[in-house]
Amino acid sequence: MHSLQFTAESSSNGTVERDFTVGDVPGVLWSPASDSAERAPLVLMGHGGGAHKKHPAMAGRAQRLVADGGFHVAVIDAPGHGDRPRTAQDEREIAELRAAQAAGEPAGPIVVRYNARLAELAVPEWQATLDALQQLPEIGADGPVGYFGIALGTAIGVPLVAVEPRITAAVLGLMWPDALLEAARRITVPIEFDLQWDDELIPREAGLALFDAFGSTEKTLHANAGKHFDFPRFEADSAVRFLARHLGGSVTSPA
Amino acid sequence: MHSLQFTAESSSNGTVERDFTVGDVPGVLWSPASDSAERAPLVLMGHGGGAHKKHPAMAGRAQRLVADGGFHVAVIDAPGHGDRPRTAQDEREIAELRAAQAAGEPAGPIVVRYNARLAELAVPEWQATLDALQQLPEIGADGPVGYFGIALGTAIGVPLVAVEPRITAAVLGLMWPDALLEAARRITVPIEFDLQWDDELIPREAGLALFDAFGSTEKTLHANAGKHFDFPRFEADSAVRFLARHLGGSVTSPA
Repeated sequence: MHSLQFTAESSSNGTVERDFTVGDVPGVLWSPASDSAERAPLVLMGHGGGAHKKHPAMAGRAQRLVADGGFHVAVIDAPGHGDRPRTAQDEREIAELRAAQAAGEPAGPIVVRYNARLAELAVPEWQATLDALQQLPEIGADGPVGYFGIALGTAIGVPLVAVEPRITAAVLGLMWPDALLEAARRITVPIEFDLQWDDELIPREAGLALFDAFGSTEKTLHANAGKHFDFPRFEADSAVRFLARHLGGSVTSPA
Repeated sequence: MHSLQFTAESSSNGTVERDFTVGDVPGVLWSPASDSAERAPLVLMGHGGGAHKKHPAMAGRAQRLVADGGFHVAVIDAPGHGDRPRTAQDEREIAELRAAQAAGEPAGPIVVRYNARLAELAVPEWQATLDALQQLPEIGADGPVGYFGIALGTAIGVPLVAVEPRITAAVLGLMWPDALLEAARRITVPIEFDLQWDDELIPREAGLALFDAFGSTEKTLHANAGKHFDFPRFEADSAVRFLARHLGGSVTSPA
């Protein structure tokens, strides 16, 4: 088992940011500055396709989860993303995706196939990262763990949550169902699922089919008017409250 | 124009409860006890079928809206409900509904027809009530007004919000679309719309069709796993936050 190595630390706005590696996988752990050594629930976040562990969307959501929920928040770079090398296969898939986009052809089949391959690699990386994070005294082996990932973060998150019993609540969304239905049916923990009602990339029925597939007794669909990239910021606030409700964190700031 | 007559007042848990009448229509106004004379946004709430203005669901939601949002909250009895007399037509519709339920036949066609008739009566009653409430100094003629009503509260709320420009945000849900589509298309204010994903009374596609019909640029569907009467309590918290976001109230309590 790889242990977690911290490689850098900084602090701002009440949040401590610590870069780490687990084996070859680079990650970042955000924690409340006031009590970064206190036990608190852990939220694993998956970034979107083409983004990385410290993308502004990740940093922004982490800031809310730390400040409003008191959580520890960890993100790792997906294979071929951020500080990780791209393979020849990554380059081929990305070139094919760009060609399809330039030609106005559907991106879905390429994204589904490429993200499914990334998920195969990423799920064991996340499990090793979680093993290592749980060695930290401020996280611990038996604390609550949630997951929050949209788009590529859902392509990886669905198979991860399906096989990882330590994750007990998840916020997911904005992904084609094609490669995910079987894993989604095996998930029984509470789910908050986001989709865009006027998504020009993912057909409405496809998004609804993925929500429908989750085996969870408690699952909530949040469908917002607007296109794929109009995904509204207030859903990040909703995700914080959902995770606080299920992981036992406290929401301290106004809505 | 009828003016508002207060008929009783009591106070508990930080909330002042004042019974009132506007003409023949009885209502209740809940306000923060600490500053019941302060200007604050007004939320109109519509109760469900067979319920009344002080049904526990109304009192519970009002408590959250007052305590967490600082709002004034008004509910009136729908025609034939609560302290209002039932007409011969009310009695016939209710008898027919109970017979259908006892026979295991669909309630939808009866509810749709009966609630559409109640809405015709209730919309002008709500407008007269709003006129009268806005005469109160703590509400005022130009303060923000929202609407929150599920089921019968939506059968009345959709035509009300469609014709009433003073209402600038609404939480609706759990109703057949049949009588409401045209009015829904005319609504352009922000909407939060609730449906139950496994509703045994209202088909899923029917609920989605009503959400789809709203003309609003900002609209959010909250679809929860479970049957019609499993509508989860945390959606009332979500409604408070939605109304606070759009009416400018403050949410002061934890998630």
